[in-house]
Amino acid sequence: MGDKEISKAVINRLPRYYRYLGDLLEIDVVRISSKELSEKMKVTASQIRQDLNNFGGFGQQGYGYNVEYLHSEIGKILGLEKRYNVVIIGAGNLGQALANYVDFERRGFFVRAIFDISPRLIGTKIRGIEVLSSDLLEEYIEKNTVDIVAITVPKAKAPQLASDLVKWGISGIWNFAPTDLNLPKEVTVENVHLAESLMKLSYRLTVKDEEE
Amino acid sequence: MGDKEISKAVINRLPRYYRYLGDLLEIDVVRISSKELSEKMKVTASQIRQDLNNFGGFGQQGYGYNVEYLHSEIGKILGLEKRYNVVIIGAGNLGQALANYVDFERRGFFVRAIFDISPRLIGTKIRGIEVLSSDLLEEYIEKNTVDIVAITVPKAKAPQLASDLVKWGISGIWNFAPTDLNLPKEVTVENVHLAESLMKLSYRLTVKDEEE
Repeated sequence: MGDKEISKAVINRLPRYYRYLGDLLEIDVVRISSKELSEKMKVTASQIRQDLNNFGGFGQQGYGYNVEYLHSEIGKILGLEKRYNVVIIGAGNLGQALANYVDFERRGFFVRAIFDISPRLIGTKIRGIEVLSSDLLEEYIEKNTVDIVAITVPKAKAPQLASDLVKWGISGIWNFAPTDLNLPKEVTVENVHLAESLMKLSYRLTVKDEEE
Repeated sequence: MGDKEISKAVINRLPRYYRYLGDLLEIDVVRISSKELSEKMKVTASQIRQDLNNFGGFGQQGYGYNVEYLHSEIGKILGLEKRYNVVIIGAGNLGQALANYVDFERRGFFVRAIFDISPRLIGTKIRGIEVLSSDLLEEYIEKNTVDIVAITVPKAKAPQLASDLVKWGISGIWNFAPTDLNLPKEVTVENVHLAESLMKLSYRLTVKDEEE
């Protein structure tokens, strides 16, 4: 697209549209009106039309949206028609959970290698993928195409690891360590901060309690 | 606070302030100016002042913020001075990762029980907490105070489970299943959709590629 004008809020909603349309496809729904989609997704119909107009519309007056077409077009916008080589660093429970999540593959994300420093884990296999020693990481990145690195190491180790990764040429990081990585602008970092999500939940529970 | 006027964007930033201030406390920083905090957090100083003014300020002209005080006040706003009894449903890798995350306890979230349907997992222990059969869930909730239920079961099972939980009196849900739960308004649901986070990453990588 190369269009920088698309707001972050729209981008945040696209994966959700994609997920809903995928659910509809699974139950063989062929077309849907923006009104129906809006009821399902709890977003206003005009919001949906506005969001999709950012990418040229896709809808047809009086017909609504062709589910398969819209799903595939949003998939293209999200870059899901490509294949991504993913490497996970940290083979603890969270790293294992990511490695075991087959749904990622369906969307083009393939876990190619898992690294850890623990002798207890090195050599074990997760869904057929061997856990390698972190000592081999630099060499692995040199010899293989790695599009995305998922970081599931402890907070204290994440900043150094991330800056090493960038030095070795990695430009896409999926960060699960509970810290912000200060990396050059050209590196794309997507954070999943679980503790912050839990704090938002406790905030909302607290406000609710006080209102009662 | 009972103040409904506080925007979602502010609420989303509070856990991050809390995390940063906690990091500063760990290295014995006593006070910080909004300018310094702003440089660390990559948020403008005026944004920080504005955010904190929602809760009465906390800063002192010419002094800045007392780190410990601000940390503790934001903690109170987030409801972190309380203790939450957490139950995890689904003892797979993700459930285990959550159960093993000791940092949650430091913030008042205590995992009291883990449930699963798999005979292979029932009876095993995760950090000393026994995995119980899901058959016992309703009885457990009846006999114990449960503030938050983390759902890490497959997508297909999540909606029924969530509506059972609500029927049994649960009003705080931390949902990891890749589906939206359609629950009554009085139930607070915080979603962690990993696949959507990954799609946002691929979108940003795609846009970057096309700009180059």
